[in-house]
Amino acid sequence: MITSTLIFRQLFEARSSTYTYIIGCAATRKAAIIDPVLETVERDAKLISQLDLDLQLGLNTHVHADHVTGTAALAKIFPSMRSCLSDESGAKADRLLAHREKVKVGRLEMQCRHTPGHTNGCSSYVLDSEGLVFTGDALLFRGCGRTDFQQGDASRLYDSVWNEILSLPDNFSIFPGHDYNGHMSSSVREEKKFNPRLTLEKKKFIELMNNLKLDYPKQIDRALLANMKNGEM
Amino acid sequence: MITSTLIFRQLFEARSSTYTYIIGCAATRKAAIIDPVLETVERDAKLISQLDLDLQLGLNTHVHADHVTGTAALAKIFPSMRSCLSDESGAKADRLLAHREKVKVGRLEMQCRHTPGHTNGCSSYVLDSEGLVFTGDALLFRGCGRTDFQQGDASRLYDSVWNEILSLPDNFSIFPGHDYNGHMSSSVREEKKFNPRLTLEKKKFIELMNNLKLDYPKQIDRALLANMKNGEM
Repeated sequence: MITSTLIFRQLFEARSSTYTYIIGCAATRKAAIIDPVLETVERDAKLISQLDLDLQLGLNTHVHADHVTGTAALAKIFPSMRSCLSDESGAKADRLLAHREKVKVGRLEMQCRHTPGHTNGCSSYVLDSEGLVFTGDALLFRGCGRTDFQQGDASRLYDSVWNEILSLPDNFSIFPGHDYNGHMSSSVREEKKFNPRLTLEKKKFIELMNNLKLDYPKQIDRALLANMKNGEM
Repeated sequence: MITSTLIFRQLFEARSSTYTYIIGCAATRKAAIIDPVLETVERDAKLISQLDLDLQLGLNTHVHADHVTGTAALAKIFPSMRSCLSDESGAKADRLLAHREKVKVGRLEMQCRHTPGHTNGCSSYVLDSEGLVFTGDALLFRGCGRTDFQQGDASRLYDSVWNEILSLPDNFSIFPGHDYNGHMSSSVREEKKFNPRLTLEKKKFIELMNNLKLDYPKQIDRALLANMKNGEM
């Protein structure tokens, strides 16, 4: 989508069902990328160049367990790009962001909100002027990230989502880190009303999350090792 | 995305890599769906209901050869929905649209532009007020639909794309019928500059399109038979 202030693209990496986002300031051509995937760095770099954008920030919503981040590879192509991660992640990045810290993308301003629970170092990024929030794995379309490994904590996740994401205005669009059924976005209004997990009482949510019995993520060993070092292999 | 006038959703059907779109008028809650797929009708109907939208139109960009349209199944769930198709398609629909005919979605207005070449009955839908165009298989991200079966005609496709789509303002967003590499949208500016096929001279484009040597579409026999009758099986 293109508005007078924003250049916006959502991209999909099929193997890990990951969404990557490009956010560009229409006035200055400065840009950020959220959650790039190593395997699609070439595709994303080409698009950024064709959109005539100057990539400044590579934001990871957390230390991913299901794919290797593309931030290290992108920094080689765009030397002025700085990788960013929550300062509670315990991992390496050019810039470690505190809760509610703001980052500039040209004239646009994004706020990092810590939303731990899926991992310790999860954060969401709020683009207030455009009514958008990028939630990583904290909040998914009618779902949320798992909490059964990698410092997962269902109680913390519940509080994060309600206090930092669903407290935003109803008409804010939610852009998640993944989807497995072809949904690409949601809104605060919808998730407050229809999210089958988050609409439960906290106690029931914790009980549900602690009994999901999910498979061990396929790429976790390779991914975590690399992502703790900003995606360097 | 949500604006003061528009409720907009893009959805993906993985087997045929098809994009489906929901376009709602924020003021009246009237809505249209573009290119629904039979296999994901339940998903789409649920979302339309949760968004509190009243589905009025089921627009097909053409008689698809790679999937069965969901319009017949949606009409059973939303009895006031009317299916629409180009009047050059030779197929059945509740409403057959002429070139440049307009359809209302609440206070929004979409224009049907015939863009034949992939098939005789291809059309694109332009939502002028929001700067969006839905191009079906006429124009894809850095590509276009094939022209080697189903009344395909490379010369007609070239003219359709240049005269009816790439003549729109540069900042119009293009939402295609498919993508196979995780791209979800493009813009007129980009395709005019970077589309490797459409930036060729017409003669070279025709030569290229006539020598693609593509496989026969897997679902074509089942799909065409159903789609000529508005998706009734």
